[in-house]
Amino acid sequence: MSGNNAPKHGGNLYAAMRQKGGSLNEILDFSANINPLGLSEQIRQTLYASLESIIHYPDVQGHALKQELSHYYHVKQEQITLGNGAVELMYVLCHMLKPKRVLVTAPTFSEYESAARASGAAIEYFYLNAADDFTIDIQGIAQQLPAIDIVFICNPNNPTGKLLSNGQIEELVAMAKVHQTYVVVDESFLDFLLDDHTYTCRSLLEKYNNLIILHSLTKFYAIPGLRLGFSLTNPELTNRLHAGKDPWNVNTLAQNAGVAALRDEEYQHKSKEFIKKVNMDLYHSLLTIPGLKPYKPSVNFILINIKDTNLIAEELRQALAAHNILIRDCSNYPGLSPDYIRIAVKSPEQNHKLIAALQQIIGGIE
Amino acid sequence: MSGNNAPKHGGNLYAAMRQKGGSLNEILDFSANINPLGLSEQIRQTLYASLESIIHYPDVQGHALKQELSHYYHVKQEQITLGNGAVELMYVLCHMLKPKRVLVTAPTFSEYESAARASGAAIEYFYLNAADDFTIDIQGIAQQLPAIDIVFICNPNNPTGKLLSNGQIEELVAMAKVHQTYVVVDESFLDFLLDDHTYTCRSLLEKYNNLIILHSLTKFYAIPGLRLGFSLTNPELTNRLHAGKDPWNVNTLAQNAGVAALRDEEYQHKSKEFIKKVNMDLYHSLLTIPGLKPYKPSVNFILINIKDTNLIAEELRQALAAHNILIRDCSNYPGLSPDYIRIAVKSPEQNHKLIAALQQIIGGIE
Repeated sequence: MSGNNAPKHGGNLYAAMRQKGGSLNEILDFSANINPLGLSEQIRQTLYASLESIIHYPDVQGHALKQELSHYYHVKQEQITLGNGAVELMYVLCHMLKPKRVLVTAPTFSEYESAARASGAAIEYFYLNAADDFTIDIQGIAQQLPAIDIVFICNPNNPTGKLLSNGQIEELVAMAKVHQTYVVVDESFLDFLLDDHTYTCRSLLEKYNNLIILHSLTKFYAIPGLRLGFSLTNPELTNRLHAGKDPWNVNTLAQNAGVAALRDEEYQHKSKEFIKKVNMDLYHSLLTIPGLKPYKPSVNFILINIKDTNLIAEELRQALAAHNILIRDCSNYPGLSPDYIRIAVKSPEQNHKLIAALQQIIGGIE
Repeated sequence: MSGNNAPKHGGNLYAAMRQKGGSLNEILDFSANINPLGLSEQIRQTLYASLESIIHYPDVQGHALKQELSHYYHVKQEQITLGNGAVELMYVLCHMLKPKRVLVTAPTFSEYESAARASGAAIEYFYLNAADDFTIDIQGIAQQLPAIDIVFICNPNNPTGKLLSNGQIEELVAMAKVHQTYVVVDESFLDFLLDDHTYTCRSLLEKYNNLIILHSLTKFYAIPGLRLGFSLTNPELTNRLHAGKDPWNVNTLAQNAGVAALRDEEYQHKSKEFIKKVNMDLYHSLLTIPGLKPYKPSVNFILINIKDTNLIAEELRQALAAHNILIRDCSNYPGLSPDYIRIAVKSPEQNHKLIAALQQIIGGIE
């Protein structure tokens, strides 16, 4: 088995099953940040109805999905590149732009770094401060920009949940433009917010040609196994991204699911309301457990400092695995110590099971 | 709409529908080379049974599929990189190897050239000779190798159908090794042959670290809309390819379909027998139409020179489109003139419809 293929993310259900046995449904996966409402009925029906069409090539132009994205997110079709997940586009972007130096915050989602390294770039970290709740200091980042070709910003940041307003993003993009630095803003979790318009920087696309937006549709619509994402860029860069990838990169079912998803207003609203309530409920429950320091969530995941439990993340991960519960051990995030875990927000019943297991383990009842 | 996104291949059913109206099933698509037996019942059942699992990430290690591929094709797991279709891996390969000069035969499948250009390579063509039935001259190619970083060989060649034996491939790979040139052999259509062992060069992988094999599973198993392929390389290069791509690049349904497909011996045998008979039947029918010069097929497609009909490919394509029949106009293949079309081999009933339409159009009955 290839070393580069080894699990380094959450959501490794299949690896967990191979290790422990059991079926997908027996494992409570708090390690992947997927919408707890699961597949919408609209998507499910669309998939069953279009399964037989996989004997044909996908629409190479992604016509219906681009129309729907353009309508839903108020963007132009010539700004859109469809991706086999947003992560594919991180790699295509780096392969095509060939940056020499890439800046990422520490911590953040690790595929920015992996994609940049694959294209031959050197990585610089902008370390976020735990004492400051991992707030992203725009002015601090700006000082490093002169030597940087691409800076990746995750908004809200994964795994900390910290948000930047679109005003703060504009400040950064404007300063970056002076140095011809691309700013990639990953807005994959913004769909979970009722007030996402306060944060998205889509309206800045026309003004700044150095702005690149990435967006996954797999988390909010609970279709990570299908793969679907997109990027928004200036049209010239859209053309380069199209030239740098397989023209059939987005499978037929993902295209169809995407169209159904974007039209499903009921699911969208229900999900946003659900997460807003349940993430705070879970946060408050976590606060009652001695030794846990959860960071206030913005979307559907919560970073927790577990130092005062006297357990390290790997120990807590193993203890919870014995309860058939997966969490994300954050010790391999640059900028985080083995004192951090990340959990997804799931249904109230599932969250209660996690809380009960944590109480047992940390309370020493086991 | 991005220019790079414009249709340039066969199989653009969706574009055809947008132009003409109608549904997927009303169009007879002879432009894409897909197994006419369609989805196997094993694959269909697997897909319906696993549809709900798309709420989880795909297995990042592709464990079950790599095991099955290793068993079926007698290769080592550390040689395998799974792809979102074989075409994705052409791009990853070129992005990671960054060739300066790439040699392709003319004509051949155009994505080799597109992937190479995307990585910044210059393209050299090795022109095949129509008078010689587009036979691939190994010695001729060898003479160009000293200045070449990667040579792509499609076996059988798309769109000509010409086969090379594994002995001829070995000759080329051995000569290429002297110049540190990679030889990429695309074996995507070999599954259609009963005697594919005479042609595949998989057994040479251990001996030559400059050999790269690409293999699509979408054509033989009729799942182009799902996307699935793989590459076989030396283990060091396998690691580089894994580092150069999205770790979740192969969606869950494609992984599951692949496992079911490789275990479906009945479908495999039936398909090979079917194609062997039906492609020759279609070839002989084409020979009866005045002005058509079909090239003898090896697998599930036939190249045809239509010069003596006094039509060019675009005219014949349009005339057949009026019958709801799509064919591949080959005039955009380097090395082919507007005198060439390519058709897929479909079911006897569908083939009869094509023949009848060709008789009408070329016989001037219209």
